[in-house]
Amino acid sequence: MLLGSNYPSSDLRDRTLETILRERRIRLAEQVDFPVVLWSGRSKSRNFPANTYPFRASSHFLYFAGLPLENAAVRLESGKLELFLDDPASGAALWHGEAPKRHEVARTIGADVAFPLSELPARAKDAATIAVLNNEIRQQQALVLERSISPLDALNGIDRELARAIVQLRLSHDAGALGELRQAAAVSVEAHKAGMAATKTAHLEARIRGAMEGVILSQNMTCAYNSIVTVHGEVLHNDRYHHPLQAGDLLLADVGAETPLGWASDITRTWPVNGQFSATQRAIYEVVLAAHDRAIEAVKPGVEYRNVHLLAAKVLAEGLVDLGILCGNPEDLVEADAHALFFPHGIGHLLGLDVHDMEDLGDYAGYENNRARSKRFGLCFLRLHRPLKPSMLVTIEPGFYQVPGILNNPQNREKYKDAVNWERLEQFADVRGIRIEDDVLVTEDGGEVTTSALPTDIESIEHLVSDSGRT
Amino acid sequence: MLLGSNYPSSDLRDRTLETILRERRIRLAEQVDFPVVLWSGRSKSRNFPANTYPFRASSHFLYFAGLPLENAAVRLESGKLELFLDDPASGAALWHGEAPKRHEVARTIGADVAFPLSELPARAKDAATIAVLNNEIRQQQALVLERSISPLDALNGIDRELARAIVQLRLSHDAGALGELRQAAAVSVEAHKAGMAATKTAHLEARIRGAMEGVILSQNMTCAYNSIVTVHGEVLHNDRYHHPLQAGDLLLADVGAETPLGWASDITRTWPVNGQFSATQRAIYEVVLAAHDRAIEAVKPGVEYRNVHLLAAKVLAEGLVDLGILCGNPEDLVEADAHALFFPHGIGHLLGLDVHDMEDLGDYAGYENNRARSKRFGLCFLRLHRPLKPSMLVTIEPGFYQVPGILNNPQNREKYKDAVNWERLEQFADVRGIRIEDDVLVTEDGGEVTTSALPTDIESIEHLVSDSGRT
Repeated sequence: MLLGSNYPSSDLRDRTLETILRERRIRLAEQVDFPVVLWSGRSKSRNFPANTYPFRASSHFLYFAGLPLENAAVRLESGKLELFLDDPASGAALWHGEAPKRHEVARTIGADVAFPLSELPARAKDAATIAVLNNEIRQQQALVLERSISPLDALNGIDRELARAIVQLRLSHDAGALGELRQAAAVSVEAHKAGMAATKTAHLEARIRGAMEGVILSQNMTCAYNSIVTVHGEVLHNDRYHHPLQAGDLLLADVGAETPLGWASDITRTWPVNGQFSATQRAIYEVVLAAHDRAIEAVKPGVEYRNVHLLAAKVLAEGLVDLGILCGNPEDLVEADAHALFFPHGIGHLLGLDVHDMEDLGDYAGYENNRARSKRFGLCFLRLHRPLKPSMLVTIEPGFYQVPGILNNPQNREKYKDAVNWERLEQFADVRGIRIEDDVLVTEDGGEVTTSALPTDIESIEHLVSDSGRT
Repeated sequence: MLLGSNYPSSDLRDRTLETILRERRIRLAEQVDFPVVLWSGRSKSRNFPANTYPFRASSHFLYFAGLPLENAAVRLESGKLELFLDDPASGAALWHGEAPKRHEVARTIGADVAFPLSELPARAKDAATIAVLNNEIRQQQALVLERSISPLDALNGIDRELARAIVQLRLSHDAGALGELRQAAAVSVEAHKAGMAATKTAHLEARIRGAMEGVILSQNMTCAYNSIVTVHGEVLHNDRYHHPLQAGDLLLADVGAETPLGWASDITRTWPVNGQFSATQRAIYEVVLAAHDRAIEAVKPGVEYRNVHLLAAKVLAEGLVDLGILCGNPEDLVEADAHALFFPHGIGHLLGLDVHDMEDLGDYAGYENNRARSKRFGLCFLRLHRPLKPSMLVTIEPGFYQVPGILNNPQNREKYKDAVNWERLEQFADVRGIRIEDDVLVTEDGGEVTTSALPTDIESIEHLVSDSGRT
């Protein structure tokens, strides 16, 4: 890249990045007739000011500015791009190396003009913005715009109009985005294969995590979210890695890479620690896999994502009825949320610059206008409730979990006393948590699994766990 | 541990942790006669609220509370410990698993009594505190204490007295701390060996970083700071990893592990990408190594750390005179800061819960009372200016760098026109940056290198790079 040594390399070549960004601005200008200023944010301190977490630019900024510039802003109006960025402080080169100058960055991203940050207040009049997740910068936003900034949970005025417009753009991925998203997916696939391969010799969850994240870091990517790598898959957002691995355990790994320009992937696989599913694990795994496959088959433009969720729930219920765990008619069981005893989350979510794309805007992205979260146990965690559109990227991630807090809840025991064969369920005690998650691009022809290089079938999984570690 | 599955395992057994913490409180009570309240902080958002960076508790909190409890506080007075922590919200178990209850945590850390957070305001009267690096929590601190909290860069009143007392405690490590610090050091050693072993087959800096951090994660530790893994060692805080590795390059890796309870290590090694130092690289490496070894030999109680720095500078200058790069008397050259053209940072810093220990307090920890930073080019970056005391842990990390911003600076060229043989220097163009860093414990007998399991000599380094990758 023109910027030389200080920006991550990428398949997005300069000309391409410039073109991609221009097209995004033009599409934005088709939707809003007011100026827009977006801030990138600043790095956050960990345990002392100079020891920061790795900087992550605001996703809205990244979408229009392309590069993870710290402490920068862009102004967008009528397809024009203005960059606000200070040149590196003198002396900074000693500690951080030669950083690109403002005009070099401006050229790379195709900015029409570039200014130091001090010029921003004079040029930000009447602009809309999105609050960044950094108090210090959020105060700057209010100072610069001379007004209060809409809180993310109560968007209003032109900030709300802007949020709606950005959602429309970011809901469907352009070629530049898809190139990045596919790179992230490919690296995540390699990470999962490395995790499976490392299992045979590992004695601790952390070992598997280290093998997986090591691959992601080795490709100069970062993790899009805190990895879940656990033999306690029933804890949905488990972020600890200290459990020993024991023969008979299933390991659930939900690990995804993010490219240097910020685009995410999100994959979950569940595999047996000793390389072989038990009969009960195999039985439940096949049920979850059927839900996964049927849900993916259902993905196409125009289909309501909620119906994909309900289909997966029904397939899961059918399988659990066949296994004698649930009792009754599958459709009735789903209607009664009995599936949610074992599958208490949604079938998936939007994926893009954020692993839950645009979730900073609450349900603005996930939920079509005038739709709200259901109160139903089996639907309330659904993060996406829209008809699918071409170039949307969503996850499909059904699961089966034995969550003590749900299954031992006396109200649930009472409510579902006839729907669940609790004695039969006890025979499946070695299945604490299974999830199978892929990333699915909505195309005119249906769903394209961007993570399909990682198999889901039992035979392949067992093979990857048992053999790869030896090669 | 009693807490079961939700806290990291550690060699600090419960009884020991309880005892260690009690002893720390008693030592604090010997120094201050007012109550103290310390907050742990909260996790910080990355790109959307639910996607957080891994939580890191405030180091001052960790020192007295032992465990990385999120959104907690402790009150210390006369050797007593009160814990303020809310029980997990109902429903949290679904997403995050069963978390320990307040009374279980209290038992583990030996709290005399424990309350929900809502009780804190009533019990925080007249307490001193240290501001945490989290705006939201800092506002809580002010609300709870009903006063403004001393800014970290302008400590005053009882907050300043507290800071001074904590510094006195944390300057010398107790057995519990040393146990953790040694664990961190051991894992960092393994990470560096893995990095060397991975070099032969790597084509990108990121590959080495992935191999090294993979080891740290595999041991269920985290990185104490953003790793530096670069063929551009002349960029002192390089945090990018995208350069290709080329035969003839030196790779500089500054990577350190942190234990689950927060204790840090900090190691740098520099090795040749192709497994063999060139003659010029070897010559400079030996000079840096001599400075490293002589500085470590000088470490003992009562010695001024600044003199260790000046000794290393002198040894470096001597070596560079011998190589014909510097011209003149080494002591005069150091007096003129000529060494700092190539070694522009300090010889090291305190190490403990923070990799620059207690640097949140500015120079309160690093600088003895009534001492201030020098304005001299060769001393202004020195982070520690105290006489060494038993059980202090410091880094010793001399280096040689060819920083374009320093060496091409016309003022430096003029000022040092006779001190540097610039033509001779050009022959060392393949030495962009070398640093050799170890962690050294001050004992009654002198310095004990806690990271000595990782060799520094050329033969061993070349062997680790050339051979280990094949085993």
